[in-house]
Amino acid sequence: MSEPFSKRRSALRTRLAAAGLDALVVPQTANWYYLTGFTGEAGALVVSRKGTALFTDGRFTTQAREETRGVRIVQQKGSLYESVGQWLRAGGSKRIGYDAGALSVEQFRRLRRAGGRGRKWLERSGVVEGLRACKEAGELAQMRKAAVLAGEVLESVLRLLKPGVREVEIAAEIEYRMRREGASGAAFESIVAFGERTALPHARPTTRKLRKNELVVLDLGAILAHYCSDITRTVYVGRAPKRIRNWYQGVLEAQQAAIATVRAGVECGEVDAAARRVLAGYGLERRFVHSTGHGLGLEVHEEPRVARGQKQRLAPGNVVTIEPGVYVAGVGGIRIEDDVAVHLQSTEVLTRIPRDLIEI
Amino acid sequence: MSEPFSKRRSALRTRLAAAGLDALVVPQTANWYYLTGFTGEAGALVVSRKGTALFTDGRFTTQAREETRGVRIVQQKGSLYESVGQWLRAGGSKRIGYDAGALSVEQFRRLRRAGGRGRKWLERSGVVEGLRACKEAGELAQMRKAAVLAGEVLESVLRLLKPGVREVEIAAEIEYRMRREGASGAAFESIVAFGERTALPHARPTTRKLRKNELVVLDLGAILAHYCSDITRTVYVGRAPKRIRNWYQGVLEAQQAAIATVRAGVECGEVDAAARRVLAGYGLERRFVHSTGHGLGLEVHEEPRVARGQKQRLAPGNVVTIEPGVYVAGVGGIRIEDDVAVHLQSTEVLTRIPRDLIEI
Repeated sequence: MSEPFSKRRSALRTRLAAAGLDALVVPQTANWYYLTGFTGEAGALVVSRKGTALFTDGRFTTQAREETRGVRIVQQKGSLYESVGQWLRAGGSKRIGYDAGALSVEQFRRLRRAGGRGRKWLERSGVVEGLRACKEAGELAQMRKAAVLAGEVLESVLRLLKPGVREVEIAAEIEYRMRREGASGAAFESIVAFGERTALPHARPTTRKLRKNELVVLDLGAILAHYCSDITRTVYVGRAPKRIRNWYQGVLEAQQAAIATVRAGVECGEVDAAARRVLAGYGLERRFVHSTGHGLGLEVHEEPRVARGQKQRLAPGNVVTIEPGVYVAGVGGIRIEDDVAVHLQSTEVLTRIPRDLIEI
Repeated sequence: MSEPFSKRRSALRTRLAAAGLDALVVPQTANWYYLTGFTGEAGALVVSRKGTALFTDGRFTTQAREETRGVRIVQQKGSLYESVGQWLRAGGSKRIGYDAGALSVEQFRRLRRAGGRGRKWLERSGVVEGLRACKEAGELAQMRKAAVLAGEVLESVLRLLKPGVREVEIAAEIEYRMRREGASGAAFESIVAFGERTALPHARPTTRKLRKNELVVLDLGAILAHYCSDITRTVYVGRAPKRIRNWYQGVLEAQQAAIATVRAGVECGEVDAAARRVLAGYGLERRFVHSTGHGLGLEVHEEPRVARGQKQRLAPGNVVTIEPGVYVAGVGGIRIEDDVAVHLQSTEVLTRIPRDLIEI
């Protein structure tokens, strides 16, 4: 990827102008990386019609100067949002957009107070997220690599699933192998669940040991050059009993139906419904306790959401996970997850490993 | 630790009563773990005079029931804070505390709307954080182990610091070794910086290779049974030139002076000032671009803050990092960090490895 940041700021400015905004306050780490390349963890960005200013503290100013181009770096004085408000006041911006979901009550209060009179604060959430949801070619290339890496790591740790191994040991291996393959880290805390713990959709790895004749759920993702992947496979240690095979078949078909529904122009809710319809046919609809998927990119959960009733339509450049699952408390759970990119005329599954039930 | 959660909720209720609150909304992950033992990542907790309710979504309800005792688990309907507001309305709570720094503008709006008439919303930040800042004996025992573990891992990777190794490789080894020793993960993204990159206080590991005759900064921490550690050492690969030795000596003396100032009853700002005074004697005060330290516990940054002008007084049970540093853009940086617990009559350094300049 050549330097994409200033182009993205131009695209954002076009949107600001169309929305009648003089400036937009950008509090989110992923958004300021997207717009400037700054990888620091503390700060705030303002994109105005005239220019871009990044506010941060002394730990990050050198880094910010090295990582960005065409961005004014301001070392905060007092609190972060006091500095932002004062800068907006000094620049005379009048109509200022902010994200009510991203600013705390306190931050917004400081911002308004320091901004002083004459400014109009307009709630505009998801402006940058809307840009981010449609990946550029360079971003898609990174996401393909991140997805392949996650699949390879998942396959490589299957060999370690021997009775006696602990969940935390597998989790340690997953993260180590991702990093050895070039990831900057895990996209989220890897889920490694054995036996009845697979019934927890977001189980945290424990010291529980693997036994024979039980389920294993592995849900992991890598961050590679800033972009996330997210994949889940379910394994049976031994020969799976009929009930488990039946559940697995239901989830697999639900996932395939949902993936087959993914297409530019389709409402996200339709994709979710496709998965639920199949599970209903298996009598498992009430066992599917979460959404079918979520957007993926610089963050592991982003736009668009693939959930019940979502009217938003899929667009070229969207990348979403498709991850139906069934969970039975005290018994176990099954989830199968892949990452899918939406193109103008086609759909591309980025994660590349088989989906059939693995028995080991 | 035996089950400490209900005791903590009792302590919180005493504070609520004293503050004239009927209920407190607790949006922070670390706070709800502290009060209930719930380790899920999404939800909200309400502690009222009458009882405790934990709101979460379908991914976490089973887990919440397994992990908590004496807590009502409510699966959210609609948005999270709508559910919270409705519950508060139904329970008739009138005076409700919230943390303006932890609730987004949007969450607070939903909460108030669903709460309906007759409720008074009172800003009360840091109530649970105030309890958390004074660690119980069981918590201190965990933090000792987490600190020792971080030191051992740091020492163990020194052997890998050979010309040609990459920052990301060292970072991968650090996290792997922490997990192999029982950590559930890293407390934060490990900082591994070589050469001129040590001038960035929060450098992210890159593929840069180590060369001879340069600085290395390693800043890492483990999460062990939920509690964080945080340690930094600076190494020179080769024989350090006089200027570097001089900087190192300044930082080391600054750290020792700050640690010597840590004592129950002392203002945090005095500890910070002690470090700055020493660095001023070396002509390095302007090179010290961040605070001297921060509280440590369930989170890697918590109360109390050891920063310029902080009037808050250290209390028994506080655990803080002491981590002065100097940074010269384009040249390099030096930081030395240890974790220090405050007792009634004494001070205990939890991190246990030597602080002298390591030349390898």
